[in-house]
Amino acid sequence: MTGPLESALAELLERFHDGQPVALGRAISLVENERPGFQDFLHEVLRVGPRAARIGFTGPPGAGKSSLLSMVATNCRTQDEQLGVVAVDPTSSYSGGALLGDRIRMSDLATDPGIFIRSMATRGSLGGLATTTKEVLDLMDAFGFDRVLIETVGVGQTELEITAAADTVIVVLVPESGDAIQTMKAGLMEIADIFVVNKADRPGADRLVKDLRQGLHLRAATAIESAPAHHGLDLARIMRKESCEEPRGPGWSPPVLSTVAQSGEGVEDLMDTIKAHRFWLEESGELEERRRGRRKVRIQDVVDRELRRTAWRSDTVLAELDQGLERIQKRKDTPYSVAWDILDRLLR
Amino acid sequence: MTGPLESALAELLERFHDGQPVALGRAISLVENERPGFQDFLHEVLRVGPRAARIGFTGPPGAGKSSLLSMVATNCRTQDEQLGVVAVDPTSSYSGGALLGDRIRMSDLATDPGIFIRSMATRGSLGGLATTTKEVLDLMDAFGFDRVLIETVGVGQTELEITAAADTVIVVLVPESGDAIQTMKAGLMEIADIFVVNKADRPGADRLVKDLRQGLHLRAATAIESAPAHHGLDLARIMRKESCEEPRGPGWSPPVLSTVAQSGEGVEDLMDTIKAHRFWLEESGELEERRRGRRKVRIQDVVDRELRRTAWRSDTVLAELDQGLERIQKRKDTPYSVAWDILDRLLR
Repeated sequence: MTGPLESALAELLERFHDGQPVALGRAISLVENERPGFQDFLHEVLRVGPRAARIGFTGPPGAGKSSLLSMVATNCRTQDEQLGVVAVDPTSSYSGGALLGDRIRMSDLATDPGIFIRSMATRGSLGGLATTTKEVLDLMDAFGFDRVLIETVGVGQTELEITAAADTVIVVLVPESGDAIQTMKAGLMEIADIFVVNKADRPGADRLVKDLRQGLHLRAATAIESAPAHHGLDLARIMRKESCEEPRGPGWSPPVLSTVAQSGEGVEDLMDTIKAHRFWLEESGELEERRRGRRKVRIQDVVDRELRRTAWRSDTVLAELDQGLERIQKRKDTPYSVAWDILDRLLR
Repeated sequence: MTGPLESALAELLERFHDGQPVALGRAISLVENERPGFQDFLHEVLRVGPRAARIGFTGPPGAGKSSLLSMVATNCRTQDEQLGVVAVDPTSSYSGGALLGDRIRMSDLATDPGIFIRSMATRGSLGGLATTTKEVLDLMDAFGFDRVLIETVGVGQTELEITAAADTVIVVLVPESGDAIQTMKAGLMEIADIFVVNKADRPGADRLVKDLRQGLHLRAATAIESAPAHHGLDLARIMRKESCEEPRGPGWSPPVLSTVAQSGEGVEDLMDTIKAHRFWLEESGELEERRRGRRKVRIQDVVDRELRRTAWRSDTVLAELDQGLERIQKRKDTPYSVAWDILDRLLR
């Protein structure tokens, strides 16, 4: 944060504010690759606060998240909304060749100028995928899209952290996932604003809907604090981190919907529920609470990233690392004693 | 790293070196909860280098990783090997009630005194799950187990980082995973030492074996450097990080095996292949290379963790964070300018 943007970035910023999609694409690359000045650029962009409605889709591979997201996107487009889409799920199919018949819908999306789609590769950044992805979400938001849709696989912690950066989190499940879901539910329960049982025309769908409702009921009855006891993903923690406060504010109880994304069945209901959740977010003050929580996490992430960069770009530190490895080899040191020597230097 | 261990930890260390399982359990809790002195304890424990053969099992949920791991464990036990097992997969079923019939095998394991099983919860640690889990693996190794088996779900980046801490990585797939696998393969290709197509009695197994072999052949033909172009998981990067050098040393080409874990079919073959890989690791110098790479990553992880702890346990920094949030609210700042102010203080 050294002052005014250098001229190339200032020009990019101008075109970004002009609403040129090419400029958005460049800005995303700037951030993804952590090229010089990317944080100054983000600072300028974030002078205006968030405006877009951010909707996250998560769930196990094969749950049909892409199809459902596509249906929602198509629906939003009929309202003439401008959309940004970020796909972190490595199994999602927006970019590249549409291999299967039922994915033609998505290639339609890909050629719609009202939608900007970006697949996130897990680049080798010191910052980590979660922070970079959330910065890309901010870029999309600041660019002026009405909605930003995010798709992640609901398994890894990184992916869950990203999902928690959405205002409305939709957890998509399918009857088939059964066994795996059984335990994943524990984690996904905490993060969901809306549950969708997709492929609801298949056997076991009603059962899953019932199980989910029962699970939600149970959860409401037990204290939130017991969540970390699950040996699944500690979502409660992530949510607490994101929102500073309780996992999800009171007054919203996650509904369980059924859809068949491929035929469009149930998508109208889902749209209504998304709108209702938005209304609740705004009226209850929960939206501002979540945004504040996200800002806090961002400050911490940026500080942590910069500390790492400062450390591992120093020639002295890198030399010390190499010498330390030799000493470990000779059993004179361990990774911990070497780390402590490096820390002594950094924090001296 | 302030010098000698305080007396309670010194006593724990003694009992740990005595081989008391209770002491191992306590040591793991110490590390998981990052209680005072945990890094000093690890330093003492790691004065002796790694000895155990570490075998990682990864793959999508429902691939039968737990069943396969159980078969391998049972087989090792007939050789009277002492085993440590770490399950990071939230869908694994070693602890807690065995719900399904085919899981009785695992409850058998759970009561065998020659096996020490630990499920990792994703605690709310500043260090992050990956580092903590790798520290637990080190504890198990130092405790003196002949083998340490690790199970993760091969989706998230955290989980892949953990898997990369194994000497031998077994990627478990099933015919059903088909579509999801199609793209995950891209990432898993880079990390696998051995592929196992489990549930090989089901339709599509031969096809998957063939596809995998073809994929491996293609991969061998293309430069490793092209791996980051996949929009899947950047395993090449993780592996480079872990091994300092090439993703996997030359001279080992990952075989593709078929198993039916529930009947034990193919498990003998798998055991032979694991032994062959171990032999290759030791003879080629690759094992030492991987261990060196892991030590390097550990030093960096420990430094990064301690930098974060130093930052976010300072009252001054936390006050600055709160004030910054107020200024952002008033549009006088952004998370980036606040982060920069905090960094100025920390690195002054």
